[in-house]
Amino acid sequence: MKRDRNGGIWDFEHEMAAAGGDQDLILGLDGGTTSTVCVCMPVIPLTDNHLPSDPPPVLARAVAGCSNHNSVGETAAKETLEHVMADALSKAGSTRSAVRAVCLAVSGVNHPTDQQRILDWLRAIFPNDVRCSVHNDAVAAMASGTMGKLHGCVLIAGTGTIAYGYTEDGREARASGAGPILGDWGSGYGIAAMALTSIIRAYDGRGPQTMLTSSILQELKLSSPDELIGWTYADPSWARIAALVPVVVSCAEAGDEVANGILLNAVQELASSVKAVVCRLGLCGKDGKDSCPLVMVGGVLEADRRWDIGQEVISCISKEFPGMRPIRPTVEPAVGAALLAWNFIKEQS
Amino acid sequence: MKRDRNGGIWDFEHEMAAAGGDQDLILGLDGGTTSTVCVCMPVIPLTDNHLPSDPPPVLARAVAGCSNHNSVGETAAKETLEHVMADALSKAGSTRSAVRAVCLAVSGVNHPTDQQRILDWLRAIFPNDVRCSVHNDAVAAMASGTMGKLHGCVLIAGTGTIAYGYTEDGREARASGAGPILGDWGSGYGIAAMALTSIIRAYDGRGPQTMLTSSILQELKLSSPDELIGWTYADPSWARIAALVPVVVSCAEAGDEVANGILLNAVQELASSVKAVVCRLGLCGKDGKDSCPLVMVGGVLEADRRWDIGQEVISCISKEFPGMRPIRPTVEPAVGAALLAWNFIKEQS
Repeated sequence: MKRDRNGGIWDFEHEMAAAGGDQDLILGLDGGTTSTVCVCMPVIPLTDNHLPSDPPPVLARAVAGCSNHNSVGETAAKETLEHVMADALSKAGSTRSAVRAVCLAVSGVNHPTDQQRILDWLRAIFPNDVRCSVHNDAVAAMASGTMGKLHGCVLIAGTGTIAYGYTEDGREARASGAGPILGDWGSGYGIAAMALTSIIRAYDGRGPQTMLTSSILQELKLSSPDELIGWTYADPSWARIAALVPVVVSCAEAGDEVANGILLNAVQELASSVKAVVCRLGLCGKDGKDSCPLVMVGGVLEADRRWDIGQEVISCISKEFPGMRPIRPTVEPAVGAALLAWNFIKEQS
Repeated sequence: MKRDRNGGIWDFEHEMAAAGGDQDLILGLDGGTTSTVCVCMPVIPLTDNHLPSDPPPVLARAVAGCSNHNSVGETAAKETLEHVMADALSKAGSTRSAVRAVCLAVSGVNHPTDQQRILDWLRAIFPNDVRCSVHNDAVAAMASGTMGKLHGCVLIAGTGTIAYGYTEDGREARASGAGPILGDWGSGYGIAAMALTSIIRAYDGRGPQTMLTSSILQELKLSSPDELIGWTYADPSWARIAALVPVVVSCAEAGDEVANGILLNAVQELASSVKAVVCRLGLCGKDGKDSCPLVMVGGVLEADRRWDIGQEVISCISKEFPGMRPIRPTVEPAVGAALLAWNFIKEQS
C-alpha cells in the first residue's frame, strides 16, 4: 500500500485487512463548493456492452465540506478529498486494495493543469492498477442523468450556472460558469441580484413598483430598501443572495410583472447557454433535429413550483432543437461519478 | 483649545500661535474611497447676498488616503480626516483658532446617524464657535459646480455612480449609488463588467464576436478569454475593473457594435438616474421646462473622447428636461466643500 502522508487517515485499513475477502469496488466523488460526497459501489460484472438501467447499490456514503481548491486552497481541498474517500471505504468495511476505479468530479477543476495535479496526487494514494480519473463536477451531474454515459448536455443552475456538452467521440464544450461579474445571469445569484436591483430602482424612481419590495424586505427582516445596500455588502457570499430565488418565484406566481420579467430573462439566459453548447458541438445533428439528452440539475431548475423555470427552459430550447430530451436525474452526482468509473473499467475489459 | 486625542497631530499649533495675527479661515474637505483632499481658504468679506463668481484663493491643500469609514473602519477614517485638516492648517501657517467654518463631505456618510457621529467628533476638535457641517461627498461635487449653492442635480460617474438632487428649500433625493450588485449599471465598473461579460459570451457562443476580446486581452496581457475568469476573481477591487473603460470607448470609436451597445446602455442608465431625481424633487418645475443646473463629475463623464458619454447623457436628459444646464466644474470638490462652509457663514451673518 502507498505512503500515508496524512498519518491516521488510512489507519483503519490495518484492521480491515485481517478480515480479507474484499469485493471489487468503485469510488465516485462529487466535490462542490458547499459539500463533498463520496459513494462506494460494488463492481457488478457486466453482461453486455450496455450499462444497466439501474445503478449498482451504494454500499457506503460519506460527506465532507468544501473541496474546491479555489475556495479553500489546495492543501485543505486534498485533505478533504482524501478523508471523505477513506471514510466511505471504512464505512463499506473495505480497503484501498479492493478499489478498481476512482472518479473524482470536483468543482474548480477547469484547466488540464488542475486535473493533472489532482490526478498525480490521487495516483500516489491508490495502488498503481486503480483506474483514476479527475473531472469538473459538471461531469458527475451529466453522468447522474445518463447512467454514466458522457453524451449530451448538462445544465446546472443553482447558486451559479454552467452548461456542459459532450460528444460521443470525446469532444467537450461549455458555456457560462464564469461567475456573477462575468454574466451568469440565469443563475440563482443572477435572479436574486436582479430582484434586489429592481427594489432599489423602484425605490429611487428608476423602475416600476414591484411586490418584490415588500416580499424580500419581509424575508430579510429589513424595514427599508436603503438597508438592502448594507445587507448586500455585509457578506459577499453568493449563496446567501441566491437563497432569495423562491421569493422571486412566489412574486411571479402572484402576478408581479417585474418578478415575471426577471424569471423570463433567466429562462432566456439558461436556454442560450444550452443552445450555444449544442451548436458548437453539433449535438443535435446538422439539421438540429437529432435526439440528444439534456440533464437538468440544481435548485433553480427543480420542478416543484407552478412557475417552473426548468420547464420554460426546455420549451425555449425545443423551439430550436426539438430532439432535446430533458432528464432530471434520480441519483445524486456522486453516483454519476461512480458510474463513470464503472464505465472506464468496462471500456478497459 | 480642545483636547488632543491624537497626541502630536496639533503640536504644530504651539509654534504658530506665537506668530499671531490669524486671518479668518474655512476648511473644505472631500473624502473619497481612494483619497481625501482638504483645502484651506480665507474668509473674504461678502459685499452682497450673492456668492462671487470666482472662489477665494486656496491658501493650502493637503492630501491623504481613504476616509470612507465603510472601507477602513471608523477609527482609521477619523484619524485620516484629523491628520489632513491639521496638515492643511499647518501648511497655511495657521491654527484651529483662526477657523470659522469646516465642511466635511465624506463618502460612506449615508445616514443621519453617520453624519451625527462625525459631527460630534468634529465639534470636539474645533472651538465651539466654529460652524461645522458633515455631508456625503456628492454634496462637495455639487457645490464645486455651483459655487457653493445647493440647488440642482449632480451626476457622479467614476468607478461607481450616483445622482443627487437638492431643492432650494432643502429637500434631497438620490438615485443609484447602491454598488455593482444592486445595479449601478452606468458606472465605470458597470461598463467594464459588461465588456468582460461580452467577451465571455462571444467566446462560449452566446453572443456576437467583438473587438473587445482582442483589445481587452491585450490590455490585460492575457492570452485567452478563459483567463479572464481568474483575472476577475483574483482581486475584488471595483476600480481595477473600471480602469478598462477607456478600452471600451476606443472599441466603440472604432465602430465595434458590442462596445457601442454597452456605452449606449450606460448613457440610458446614467440619464435615468438624473431623471428619477429631477422628477421626484420637481427640479424642472411642473411642466419639466424650468432651468436647473446639472453638475457632471467623474472619469466616465469627462469630455475628452470622440465617443463622449457625458454629452450623450445630456442629450438624453434634454429630450425630457430641456432646461437642464450641464456644468463641468472647474474647481475640485474640496473647494466645493469650502464654498459650502463659506455659504453657511454668510447665512449666519
